[in-house]
Amino acid sequence: MKADIESVKTFFLALQGDICAALEALDGTARFSLERLPQPGGGFGQPRVLQEGPAIEKAAVQFTHSVGDALPPAASERNPQLAGAPFQAAAISVIVHPRNPYAPTTHMNLRFFRVDADPPAWHFGGGFDLTPCYGFIEDCVHWHRTAAEAAGAHYARMKQACDAYFHLGHRGESRGIGGLFFDDWRTGGFAASLDLVRAIGTAFLPAYQPIFERRHSLAYGEAEREWQLYRRGRYAEFNLAIDRGTRYGLQSGRRIESVLASLPPLVRWSYNHAPASGTPEADLLSFYLQPKDWLGLFGDA
Amino acid sequence: MKADIESVKTFFLALQGDICAALEALDGTARFSLERLPQPGGGFGQPRVLQEGPAIEKAAVQFTHSVGDALPPAASERNPQLAGAPFQAAAISVIVHPRNPYAPTTHMNLRFFRVDADPPAWHFGGGFDLTPCYGFIEDCVHWHRTAAEAAGAHYARMKQACDAYFHLGHRGESRGIGGLFFDDWRTGGFAASLDLVRAIGTAFLPAYQPIFERRHSLAYGEAEREWQLYRRGRYAEFNLAIDRGTRYGLQSGRRIESVLASLPPLVRWSYNHAPASGTPEADLLSFYLQPKDWLGLFGDA
Repeated sequence: MKADIESVKTFFLALQGDICAALEALDGTARFSLERLPQPGGGFGQPRVLQEGPAIEKAAVQFTHSVGDALPPAASERNPQLAGAPFQAAAISVIVHPRNPYAPTTHMNLRFFRVDADPPAWHFGGGFDLTPCYGFIEDCVHWHRTAAEAAGAHYARMKQACDAYFHLGHRGESRGIGGLFFDDWRTGGFAASLDLVRAIGTAFLPAYQPIFERRHSLAYGEAEREWQLYRRGRYAEFNLAIDRGTRYGLQSGRRIESVLASLPPLVRWSYNHAPASGTPEADLLSFYLQPKDWLGLFGDA
Repeated sequence: MKADIESVKTFFLALQGDICAALEALDGTARFSLERLPQPGGGFGQPRVLQEGPAIEKAAVQFTHSVGDALPPAASERNPQLAGAPFQAAAISVIVHPRNPYAPTTHMNLRFFRVDADPPAWHFGGGFDLTPCYGFIEDCVHWHRTAAEAAGAHYARMKQACDAYFHLGHRGESRGIGGLFFDDWRTGGFAASLDLVRAIGTAFLPAYQPIFERRHSLAYGEAEREWQLYRRGRYAEFNLAIDRGTRYGLQSGRRIESVLASLPPLVRWSYNHAPASGTPEADLLSFYLQPKDWLGLFGDA
């Protein structure tokens, strides 16, 4: 099977529709916007954003199909024979910032890149990860069990890559409890890779939805809300200062509202803030954000 | 006169005390913290932070004196003969985030760097700039007039450098209305450079204080507060994704709470937000944030 971008686009667009519908149902009130924006060179972007819902403070589910005449040299440093060749890319990205501090933020990205050189080159990349402000072992196990079922034999490698990528070196902290991360993926050829990407994309809602449903109506007070706003600062730090996709988007002149749609709706930075030991807030840092084998340690719990 | 870091440190520490005292008086209630933190290799940091005052939501006035045994090669790319030589640096940085949306955010940085090679090398850098959420011509003229008096014959060059530096390329926006910016400064030798840095540092309070006093008790509502939180997003984007000092701080392992003390206390990111034309919010973008010759155009007003 050749590396057929149409089948990738079809899957990503269907997944975008499914995820938006499910998130609207979870929120109960707010609706996703729908724009279709022509891309320079061909293709189109279809960003969909939901804001200020009662349960979901902000969610962005974006599809993009880009077409280029000639791959820039900077994008082909490892494969100089590809420079100047036509290319196409398709991607879906998802971010959910719930309002309730007990409901975790989540992120997914799936992307496909093809260069029409001789021979053609292609790869998949992406993954999904979870960023709680308050930890629950049950949620971490469910998240990783669903990820492991989707990734199969590749779970251990993708989980390790996720822990390594979503790390704030300047804080010495993990962004969240991880999940799956992969890049330059061609293992087993196009059909097997697309099957794997389908399995991961399809697992996103079964992974996230039960956690959201368990947490989004828990009672909370001002202290929990403040902790959530403070922790969202870490998210903004990661996306603006570290994340490769965001940094590439800032530098490449892509539509900025799409690039930065992932940023949290409301964020607080406080100087020298540290939670008291023995609190759930301290447990987040000392236990939940320490990468660990969730399934091996707690998988039978 | 040799490049004497003691006289620089003395000035920076005195200026830190003056600015903290003046900001405490402007706020009326909140007080600056005072820490003295030994630096690896010698020297010390003295960060001072004020949070959650009635008029000043967050201010950080930080002094640092760093001493190093051997200049890293990455810091001496332009002057490889300096690699491995002992060095010292002294710096003061100031950031003020007022609570009232009509009172502008301000920032100042002054720094001195000396390498004890043969021959020794040194330079000054820094400047100050103003970031309003609502524009007032009177404030812009006062700010730039005070800057011009301090910088003298260097004003035009330093003003242009400030406009060029505080630019968000990904937004196509200026961060604020500018001020002064200089780097690698040795013009006229050490004594003349220190005099200029003293003049700029001493001008900061006369430049900012009258503006703050005119604006900090103007009546405002939720719409103005929301616009302020939204505009603070640009500030966070600049500091985390663009600012050289912050990016160096993130990568070099400096104390992270000091590096990121400049971040706004509360920030909102909204998707696709744009003010209606003809409003003060739209005027900020279309008029005030367009670099211009404030003194030539309005200096006699």
